[in-house]
Amino acid sequence: MTSETPGPKTARPPDPRPRPGGRTARTRRQVLDAVLAELGDHGYDGLTVEAVAGRAGVHRTTVYRRWRDVGGLLADVLDAAGADDWAAPDTGSLEEDLTGLNDEIHDALTARPPVVPALIAASFRSPQAAEAQRRLWDDRYARCEVVVERAVGRGELPPGTAARPLLVAATAPLYHQLLLLGDASDPHLARRSARAAARAAAAGAFTADGTPGDG
Amino acid sequence: MTSETPGPKTARPPDPRPRPGGRTARTRRQVLDAVLAELGDHGYDGLTVEAVAGRAGVHRTTVYRRWRDVGGLLADVLDAAGADDWAAPDTGSLEEDLTGLNDEIHDALTARPPVVPALIAASFRSPQAAEAQRRLWDDRYARCEVVVERAVGRGELPPGTAARPLLVAATAPLYHQLLLLGDASDPHLARRSARAAARAAAAGAFTADGTPGDG
Repeated sequence: MTSETPGPKTARPPDPRPRPGGRTARTRRQVLDAVLAELGDHGYDGLTVEAVAGRAGVHRTTVYRRWRDVGGLLADVLDAAGADDWAAPDTGSLEEDLTGLNDEIHDALTARPPVVPALIAASFRSPQAAEAQRRLWDDRYARCEVVVERAVGRGELPPGTAARPLLVAATAPLYHQLLLLGDASDPHLARRSARAAARAAAAGAFTADGTPGDG
Repeated sequence: MTSETPGPKTARPPDPRPRPGGRTARTRRQVLDAVLAELGDHGYDGLTVEAVAGRAGVHRTTVYRRWRDVGGLLADVLDAAGADDWAAPDTGSLEEDLTGLNDEIHDALTARPPVVPALIAASFRSPQAAEAQRRLWDDRYARCEVVVERAVGRGELPPGTAARPLLVAATAPLYHQLLLLGDASDPHLARRSARAAARAAAAGAFTADGTPGDG
């Protein structure tokens, strides 16, 4: 994978100076981009190794050899999605940081074509994709823990606030409402969910003993 | 499957005094029980009209005529699940009511075989099942709104607290943690999620203006 492209899903122009690994990386990017495009067009049920290979302009034996099956392709898409330098918002306020995070989740879950929902749906059917999806979420939540640590440092939250359950509480309503309930009609969902988790945390709901902090 | 098996999915013994509609209702019950049993054994991917008909001891033309396809079968299972007299807990405390509700969700999402997760997974693939799943959730949340109204009446929550977003905030972490993250290791999940939502609500996070009530 090279670094010149503007968009995340654009196929790169051929590199005039191939380096070791350059062609393999380019093939991988082409194949993974094709997986995302096929998922967006046809969903998991329409995803086949043949269609991916055709779209990527790669021989299908190459795809079978390297990724084996659709589950392997999806797992690699998810692993590649985590190999970035994403960092959680840092606004100086817990509620604002969580709202920014939720805005990103909201955008991902409501984007057209619905690639992220298709990946999540696929994780219900491919154990390999499910593992990769959980690795990705785990990594994302780990990168968000600093949001909670900073809020504790600023005195917004009581010491000993558990970061992970607070982050899950802040973000879970988006997955539930948008993905499971299929309802994207509430314009306040991202902020309200962030605010509710922040207030609950300030009131001590995520400390080990559950006693209020400054609430 | 024959009808002598114990457990909640047992087909009824033949009624010695058939009434009008009794046979149709019995056939429906047998077929829907067979859907649940097949889902538990094989998941959505293994679900076929033929297998359901065979397990229910019903001719497959009957199943095709009445339910048409797997989506129709799943939708009817979900509609039948909602046709009960379930009522939300009424303990006199918002946190306890929500914890009781979450305990039920926790049990449903972690039961073996995983029938409820299989139904939810199916709703990602069958629009008809998705519609029925949403009808069921909508009905359940509607029945839970009284929990919030009672808490407002007792002075636990500020007037104008919106019931539905509070209920979603209380329950969503269970779906996220158990179903999407696939992690059932936290014994405090049900209570902590209930408590966090209750505290956020007491602090005014679910009123229209978001101002604190008595927090």
